[in-house]
Amino acid sequence: MADKKLVEAITAMDVDFAQWYTDVVKKAELIDYTSVKGCMVLKPAGYAIWELIQKQLDAMFKETGVENVYLPMFIPESLLQKEKDHVEGFAPEVAWVTHGGLNPLQERMCVRPTSETLFCDFYKNEIQSYRDLPKVYNQWCSVVRWEKETRPFLRSREFLWQEGHTAHATAEDAEERTVQMLNVYADFCENVLAMPVIKGRKTDKEKFAGAEATYTIEALMHDGKALQSGTSHNFGDGFAKAFGIQYTDNNNKLQYVHQTSWGMTTRLIGAIIMVHGDDSGLVLPPRVAPTQVMIIPIRQQAEGVLDKAFELKDRLAAAGKEGLRVKVDDTDKSPGWKFSECEMRGIPVRVEIGPKDIEANKCVLVRRDTREKIECSLDEIETKVAELLDKMQAEMLENARKHREEHTYVAHNMEEFEKLFTEKSGFVKAMWCENQACEDEIKEKLSVTSRCMPWEQERITDTCVCCGKPATKMVYWGRAY
Amino acid sequence: MADKKLVEAITAMDVDFAQWYTDVVKKAELIDYTSVKGCMVLKPAGYAIWELIQKQLDAMFKETGVENVYLPMFIPESLLQKEKDHVEGFAPEVAWVTHGGLNPLQERMCVRPTSETLFCDFYKNEIQSYRDLPKVYNQWCSVVRWEKETRPFLRSREFLWQEGHTAHATAEDAEERTVQMLNVYADFCENVLAMPVIKGRKTDKEKFAGAEATYTIEALMHDGKALQSGTSHNFGDGFAKAFGIQYTDNNNKLQYVHQTSWGMTTRLIGAIIMVHGDDSGLVLPPRVAPTQVMIIPIRQQAEGVLDKAFELKDRLAAAGKEGLRVKVDDTDKSPGWKFSECEMRGIPVRVEIGPKDIEANKCVLVRRDTREKIECSLDEIETKVAELLDKMQAEMLENARKHREEHTYVAHNMEEFEKLFTEKSGFVKAMWCENQACEDEIKEKLSVTSRCMPWEQERITDTCVCCGKPATKMVYWGRAY
Repeated sequence: MADKKLVEAITAMDVDFAQWYTDVVKKAELIDYTSVKGCMVLKPAGYAIWELIQKQLDAMFKETGVENVYLPMFIPESLLQKEKDHVEGFAPEVAWVTHGGLNPLQERMCVRPTSETLFCDFYKNEIQSYRDLPKVYNQWCSVVRWEKETRPFLRSREFLWQEGHTAHATAEDAEERTVQMLNVYADFCENVLAMPVIKGRKTDKEKFAGAEATYTIEALMHDGKALQSGTSHNFGDGFAKAFGIQYTDNNNKLQYVHQTSWGMTTRLIGAIIMVHGDDSGLVLPPRVAPTQVMIIPIRQQAEGVLDKAFELKDRLAAAGKEGLRVKVDDTDKSPGWKFSECEMRGIPVRVEIGPKDIEANKCVLVRRDTREKIECSLDEIETKVAELLDKMQAEMLENARKHREEHTYVAHNMEEFEKLFTEKSGFVKAMWCENQACEDEIKEKLSVTSRCMPWEQERITDTCVCCGKPATKMVYWGRAY
Repeated sequence: MADKKLVEAITAMDVDFAQWYTDVVKKAELIDYTSVKGCMVLKPAGYAIWELIQKQLDAMFKETGVENVYLPMFIPESLLQKEKDHVEGFAPEVAWVTHGGLNPLQERMCVRPTSETLFCDFYKNEIQSYRDLPKVYNQWCSVVRWEKETRPFLRSREFLWQEGHTAHATAEDAEERTVQMLNVYADFCENVLAMPVIKGRKTDKEKFAGAEATYTIEALMHDGKALQSGTSHNFGDGFAKAFGIQYTDNNNKLQYVHQTSWGMTTRLIGAIIMVHGDDSGLVLPPRVAPTQVMIIPIRQQAEGVLDKAFELKDRLAAAGKEGLRVKVDDTDKSPGWKFSECEMRGIPVRVEIGPKDIEANKCVLVRRDTREKIECSLDEIETKVAELLDKMQAEMLENARKHREEHTYVAHNMEEFEKLFTEKSGFVKAMWCENQACEDEIKEKLSVTSRCMPWEQERITDTCVCCGKPATKMVYWGRAY
């Protein structure tokens, strides 16, 4: 009875995906709403996922020479206005600070929606000579965008992210860094989040305000909608010219720097939910699971059961190089309730151990995604659990890849294109002439957006799916979060 | 010549301590100023210290059961106003957001100066039963206080910190947590920052806005001024009553929770500078040194020198359980210049290695604080360097303690008290009757503030140093940052 209650509280995915998502976010205790509309509390279970994302992504950054810094959260209005496209893109959605204490400010400031302008102002003083280049800085912080409609993790008025901002001597160096960071992002999504992504370039219509080129990784959610999961921008020398960021090269000539920026956000947690979750709740890839293993004692009042559970916990916590993240649920809830709770929270492996198991020197391992039950000798528990976590991590990626491939379609003409988006949900690949009029027309007719021009191009047809003129690019289209 | 330039750029401590501080902060490349008055950029060398503080302090928190969360940066005005003393304390120094995008907000919001009110709003929904207690949450974030006068690290309009906020069933539990966290702070300062602190309680005049009791750790800087380095507040049930945070106890009766909060900030970096620094620049305790060892090749063009330097680097980086943080300076600057730079940046140990050393299978270790030079066989470099770092860490603490003891004085009466603060600079211990009128009088006459009533009380005299009535408390007094 009690077991059912917890499970019944979630809407089934097929009934209402949006409601299912909201249910999981709340019941898995990832977030809470607040008195500030559009802002949320990241609760321990949600924030711990972000900490694991931070730790692993930050280590990957540092391997490529990234250094962390922290810049102010405020941007004076005059600074925001220095780059024309950038201010047009962001001014409509920033929060403005007008008073400091009891006094009005001489110049109002916005809370950073992103920090290109601040980094430019900083680099202008920091960079004099080619010896000062490259600068490869990153910061972990929160930013604010005053969105009208918000959804937990996917779109909130304040969110946590990292923003890398780099300055280089040449256009080639900047392009290389832009591509390098997109590859870091893609590797991170696949290896850590078990989430396959399409790497590609945004169309001019969809690129970042002020960028020459925006690269993106696009993932497919369980409901067939796309999620932009990370972006890397090449600014060329546009910002450098607007802000006057120059260096003397080794011929003693003044040159403008070339810049990039790149970011990933707490939106990734939304992606994890929507790629891996099921009707029992969250399913966490082991590498970002704050608790990887939950040990659930059966008949825990019986002599020796709790002792054995804690002994196994200590052994698993000490296993391997870094140890596993493991807990014992010794609360007075029923085992069935604990199983449901474990499932709701997405804990990858649960270990069931009771008096009979102990007598037989074994326990039962249950894998969260497949629910497979595996008998395991207590002598081998460290290796068996570690292997199971690795296997689950790998198979979650493969399953997500399979799901994406099954939901990726090809449109040869407008009729097929419309039919696909009426009947199916997923990515649709189609050829394009690179004329924005066609992109606009498709967007309006089909209520979809171009997700990217993938780096791995294919030649589906010779002509643009919309106008029939010669096509130059294959594009992924989709409905997006 | 080049070597001198770097060194001469710093003002000597004895000439002008404030200028020395500013010089170190800039020349060690910890911060840069920005277009936003009173806000600074934490540059890589500065931010990396904060990362090491975070990592080690966060691990200590988690050992005591703390969980991390993230709450919004905005506080609606009505929320800030719910606790009377609190709003009076903070409203004069907050930054107000009045517009979201192009529209005025219905209710203005401040950028958090501290998050008691947000945590109360959050806990009000989270806590229903005694089973939900305690809540022991913490967040790492930045806060904003619109100060008129600012100084890097010590007082800036935006600064980074952690703020713990807890809720407990009983007054005893809250008091226990308040004390526990002050002890964590003190241990952290001593063991990681090599900085001894006095633990004590603030007078009512100096306590936090809204608190029943504020505990503090006070450190003494090289110039004899005090620095409040961390605080832990017990709120009793004051906030709980203002916000209506109640739980049903195990007799099914409604009770108010008891709350605490505690914080440390980037101000600690200012403390490290002013406790350990010298006329050559920064001196970093090994445990918070982003680079613990700098290998400086002598005659690096000579065959085999750079190879050997990088070989030693790899060996040191792999030494011990976690490895040492080590770099090679292979730039084309002169060795002398590199030595100066190493000193300016406070790198604990430099390793000098040239062709003759390699021939003799040895190198020279130079300790930053004492400048002691130690010959070291290359066969033993891992253990010798690790031992030297440990020794330096321990002796830096002892030297700081010695300095504090030499600058801690005792006043038996007002005459002595005045004389001490005219002629000396440091802590002065004196007895007090706990009457605020005396505290006010001393503050005005001597331009000093009560730092704390230390937990380790002494009985210097029987009477208050100011009014001569019976004394109940021994107080540390000082001029403070």
